[in-house]
Amino acid sequence: MKTNKDVSDIGEYSLVELIKQQIKQPGAKNRLVVGPGDDAFVAKIPAGQLLVATKDLLVEDIHFKTSWTTPWQLGYKAMASNISDIAAMGGATPLYAMVGLALPGNEKIDFVSQLSKGMRAICDKYGVTIAGGDTVSSRSGVTISVTLLGSVKKKYIIRRSGARPGDLIYSTGCFGDSGAGLYLLSHGAGKRGKTERCLVNKHLLPEPRIAESKIIAANGLATSMIDSSDGLSASVGFLATESGIGAKIFLDSVPLSTEMQEFKKKYVKADFWNIVTGGGEEYELVFTAAPGKRRSIERLLPRAVCFGEIAKGRDVMYYFNGNRIDVNAKGFEHFR
Amino acid sequence: MKTNKDVSDIGEYSLVELIKQQIKQPGAKNRLVVGPGDDAFVAKIPAGQLLVATKDLLVEDIHFKTSWTTPWQLGYKAMASNISDIAAMGGATPLYAMVGLALPGNEKIDFVSQLSKGMRAICDKYGVTIAGGDTVSSRSGVTISVTLLGSVKKKYIIRRSGARPGDLIYSTGCFGDSGAGLYLLSHGAGKRGKTERCLVNKHLLPEPRIAESKIIAANGLATSMIDSSDGLSASVGFLATESGIGAKIFLDSVPLSTEMQEFKKKYVKADFWNIVTGGGEEYELVFTAAPGKRRSIERLLPRAVCFGEIAKGRDVMYYFNGNRIDVNAKGFEHFR
Repeated sequence: MKTNKDVSDIGEYSLVELIKQQIKQPGAKNRLVVGPGDDAFVAKIPAGQLLVATKDLLVEDIHFKTSWTTPWQLGYKAMASNISDIAAMGGATPLYAMVGLALPGNEKIDFVSQLSKGMRAICDKYGVTIAGGDTVSSRSGVTISVTLLGSVKKKYIIRRSGARPGDLIYSTGCFGDSGAGLYLLSHGAGKRGKTERCLVNKHLLPEPRIAESKIIAANGLATSMIDSSDGLSASVGFLATESGIGAKIFLDSVPLSTEMQEFKKKYVKADFWNIVTGGGEEYELVFTAAPGKRRSIERLLPRAVCFGEIAKGRDVMYYFNGNRIDVNAKGFEHFR
Repeated sequence: MKTNKDVSDIGEYSLVELIKQQIKQPGAKNRLVVGPGDDAFVAKIPAGQLLVATKDLLVEDIHFKTSWTTPWQLGYKAMASNISDIAAMGGATPLYAMVGLALPGNEKIDFVSQLSKGMRAICDKYGVTIAGGDTVSSRSGVTISVTLLGSVKKKYIIRRSGARPGDLIYSTGCFGDSGAGLYLLSHGAGKRGKTERCLVNKHLLPEPRIAESKIIAANGLATSMIDSSDGLSASVGFLATESGIGAKIFLDSVPLSTEMQEFKKKYVKADFWNIVTGGGEEYELVFTAAPGKRRSIERLLPRAVCFGEIAKGRDVMYYFNGNRIDVNAKGFEHFR
């Protein structure tokens, strides 16, 4: 099929057929009792396990700009952020995805085709079966709605609300890379050099921490957990609020990549600490652990870094070189 | 809270709190292992049953106009159309709903509040627990994404693809009411009299056929099934295509409400048969049944009407008073 056509040239039913071709995964038939193309899909949840489910909406020019991302990357990331939410529940397995697409009629077919391929690529990687969806027209702009369904053993569930005073706060990886990538994209510096391309890549192609989540859950390492999609500050804030407790964040302990340190030197006009604490979209796991778990964490998750601790009270406090400081980082809040 | 405020006056986090208040259902805590407010929700699927899941996107000015519908009605209908998709799978039970909302910042809080209440009303009615969602900003217009999750016994599943030659085609109710209601709304005649208000009501507040679906499945009445959200012609077309077979539709047997007959006399400029066959959004169940099931259907589903039969070949043919006629009804197709 020629790919320079618009969506309105082929209509909904042909478009759905095209998408179904792009997302066709070998073995999907065996994993779905009823697959895409019926009123609903039907599938198994492993015996004795619970259903875990999440959904995200991604709106053009709010969550993404098509001038910054390829449709393949967009599809990959839309799925990654939902798989990350499943990972954040603790040892959960992502199983089935549903995709809702609202598209203006003048959208290119190739856009939809590449978007579907990007989704399929990450779904193949994490064993997710694309099971259904809905494709509709929009007045303007693309809206993507992904629903991710999975399963979890009850004993493995880790909520946001289990943090206790004295618990250490860990991250499975670095902060700020994604936010710095976004800064570079919005300042037209995304392709300048290796550092820039690396940071932009972290923004456009995040990896959910499914493997780390399974290690954390299976070894009972965490008392509470969240993914860092809303940024370091908001993530710790949510854990603290949901647990009814306070927290201390030691900024000099926050893990930073070598690219991020490079970025700090090179882009002095960027609000570095705001990007680190509020940038978000890293899709790392932020979790709290009893101090006695320190050795196990070091052994099982060598890349995890402790950057704070749960404290009495209700405030999230920031420290740098032992001194308390004010940080005005809130992460991204819609409508603000 | 004063309700003349805009969404942007209170921000995402307060808005989510407001929605959580509106959708609070007694007993929800017992039905959810982890409820709204975490990265994902966690819940049970009844032992020995399969997961059934569907999702719809509703876009302002494509699927609805806020000048025609109250937000309460909009919330009710958004949920109804998804519950209907669950019903169409045969004896399935809707259990959990997730709601994605993309809103422009100048949307009134009262709109969101009423929308949530409408959703909650129908969820209470059908035993659905609102379990999670996502609220984000949009550049313009409201987009609603509903995901409905339920459970079904494997032996009860009814697909679109099981129709066989000689099967009779049934509907659980009348056609055209919803389409006529839409016609009246778009011609400013929605409030004219009792007939008009009744038809408009059928368009704005449809009822999914959960009870009928359970009767059909438990008694093994149907060989294939679909809901009529896309209209009579498209629904029969999907059953025929998926079953690799043809169909005959007897237009003089298509069930019409007294209001619809009234509408035919009064609104002679309206393309009556196009509304009946292509209007859609009735959310009735269209199903095929072996001729031997006729008596059981009459006894168990007294309101069901036979209006066609499955035929050899691949065409869907229309008849009126025994004569074959051409009908150019295709239902609504996006991007067309």
